[in-house]
Amino acid sequence: MTATNHQVRLAARPVGLPTAADWNITEEPVPTPSEGEFVVEISHVSLDPAMRGWMNAGASYIEPVEVGDVMRAGAVGKVIASENAGFAVGEHVYGALGVQEYAISDGAGLLKVDPSLAPLPTYLGTLGMTGMTAYFGLMDTGRYKDGDTVVVSGAAGAVGSVVGQIAKIKGSRVIGIAGGAEKCAWLVDELGFDVAIDYKSQNVAAELRTAAPNGVDVYFDNVGGEILDAVLTRLARGARIVICGAVSQYNNTEAVKGPSNYLALLVSRASMTGMVVFDYAAEYGKAGMELAGWMQEGKLISREDVVQGGVQAFPETLLRLFSGENVGKLVLQIGSD
Amino acid sequence: MTATNHQVRLAARPVGLPTAADWNITEEPVPTPSEGEFVVEISHVSLDPAMRGWMNAGASYIEPVEVGDVMRAGAVGKVIASENAGFAVGEHVYGALGVQEYAISDGAGLLKVDPSLAPLPTYLGTLGMTGMTAYFGLMDTGRYKDGDTVVVSGAAGAVGSVVGQIAKIKGSRVIGIAGGAEKCAWLVDELGFDVAIDYKSQNVAAELRTAAPNGVDVYFDNVGGEILDAVLTRLARGARIVICGAVSQYNNTEAVKGPSNYLALLVSRASMTGMVVFDYAAEYGKAGMELAGWMQEGKLISREDVVQGGVQAFPETLLRLFSGENVGKLVLQIGSD
Repeated sequence: MTATNHQVRLAARPVGLPTAADWNITEEPVPTPSEGEFVVEISHVSLDPAMRGWMNAGASYIEPVEVGDVMRAGAVGKVIASENAGFAVGEHVYGALGVQEYAISDGAGLLKVDPSLAPLPTYLGTLGMTGMTAYFGLMDTGRYKDGDTVVVSGAAGAVGSVVGQIAKIKGSRVIGIAGGAEKCAWLVDELGFDVAIDYKSQNVAAELRTAAPNGVDVYFDNVGGEILDAVLTRLARGARIVICGAVSQYNNTEAVKGPSNYLALLVSRASMTGMVVFDYAAEYGKAGMELAGWMQEGKLISREDVVQGGVQAFPETLLRLFSGENVGKLVLQIGSD
Repeated sequence: MTATNHQVRLAARPVGLPTAADWNITEEPVPTPSEGEFVVEISHVSLDPAMRGWMNAGASYIEPVEVGDVMRAGAVGKVIASENAGFAVGEHVYGALGVQEYAISDGAGLLKVDPSLAPLPTYLGTLGMTGMTAYFGLMDTGRYKDGDTVVVSGAAGAVGSVVGQIAKIKGSRVIGIAGGAEKCAWLVDELGFDVAIDYKSQNVAAELRTAAPNGVDVYFDNVGGEILDAVLTRLARGARIVICGAVSQYNNTEAVKGPSNYLALLVSRASMTGMVVFDYAAEYGKAGMELAGWMQEGKLISREDVVQGGVQAFPETLLRLFSGENVGKLVLQIGSD
């Protein structure tokens, strides 16, 4: 092969919001598969708030991306050359293939996906890690039970929008917290949330007093910061807070803002528990079937915000996650489907 | 009866540390029991960090003490007059009898105690709410399991010293965090803790790296603040943090310091759970027997710091809990045993 593989590599560890200088767009020849390997032509990469954490040095739930490395990303694509009997040319796969046009793999950690059942970007969203995070975070970490009042922040985001819809499918009262009237209208009008609170124009704690008169049983937190503190004031006895992320804090140049109201955990005999979706890998299949079933029945809406522009558009597109611009799952299209 | 009942009443809601002006020492005649009531001559009252919270207005896990009311306190004493067939003159009782010399009761919420089995102050400490808090906090909220490495702050305090000893009896590696060389020596030399960290002269996070090389499985937190943040950096996968109190924060005049490192919960798939001992009332008897058994076998040391001086000494004595002066269970002697 003589085609070129354009890649996004980490050039420097960002301070605060990543800038153009933190990235290098590089190119190299498309690799040739050795025995047991195959080459994937990537069609879409997943953009996730967690990426910001991967760019920092130091131990976390996953190794950091090293300076000089291709940026880690979940991606889908098509096998275009194969020396691996398990992965035939023309098959589609999902995996941590990185922000690049072509990836080489031995198949470890890759899953086959079927573009005739759902569009490829959906495998990065509701049928991918996004959906799994929502499902296991709510049901397992959040110890969801019938009759719970569920609150989710980042509710118009990839994970949050699925959390709220699952809770609605289960019959809960669901309150979403999001930024802006448009997102809030989408949550209520399209996704069927009972209430949406616009944290940009409303007082979250005051609105929750009305929206959750008996208190919050499960709070699925994607944002941290002031919103976490507000929800802490409205917990029901025995509430469970799922710590999935803290997008409000990822680009801090000062220390993370810890939840000042954490002693509400004591008052309410409540818990705050962290979750990482990878722990549930053995159960992805089962959850995926349930999520796909709900989608087929029209009960679960999967929205992907697919941005064009190829790998060159990655640095700028990533920032949409932190400016609150995107709705649903943010996906960057790299090649053709 | 014509004897006088001296009482400590809340005069004002404190800002920061309580001062003398926040209390009134009042007197009234010792009450006469009506049908179904009895009078207790109080010998000892329990002094607890939680009292500071009860002095604040607003909803918490228990109603606040109202300005003008006798200060709430656990106490032990002897029945000296009775119109209640269930409580005979001469019997000893424990209950929330308040900071006063005599209390009238209909028996609701009171427990009989036997001074021939243990000294009365012990019923305020290891065989009382202190011991129950330690026992249920560690075993239930902390979901203690064999082999856990257990860390406790306020380790030389009433609850902390029992938590660490229970964990040692269960076979754990136990690390106590306390202020000052004397307390630390007591933890290791007398109570058998594996390690004691002096937060006043040592770096807690650095010491934990050595003392808990595989990470902390259970952290029983009595103090909050910087120490909670330090322990958060050393959690083992699946760690449980028990939020029992936050004595470092109770007298803040600014906002409580939330744990900046709370995202370690995510990295470690850990939880932080609040507990209130009253929830375990139905199981006090069983736990009390286990604690008493360990005391009889010499495995569990109960230390009470009994201060003389009667109700007049209450305002000043309470402050010892916040200055870090006391070791073990702080008790104020009111009358004779």
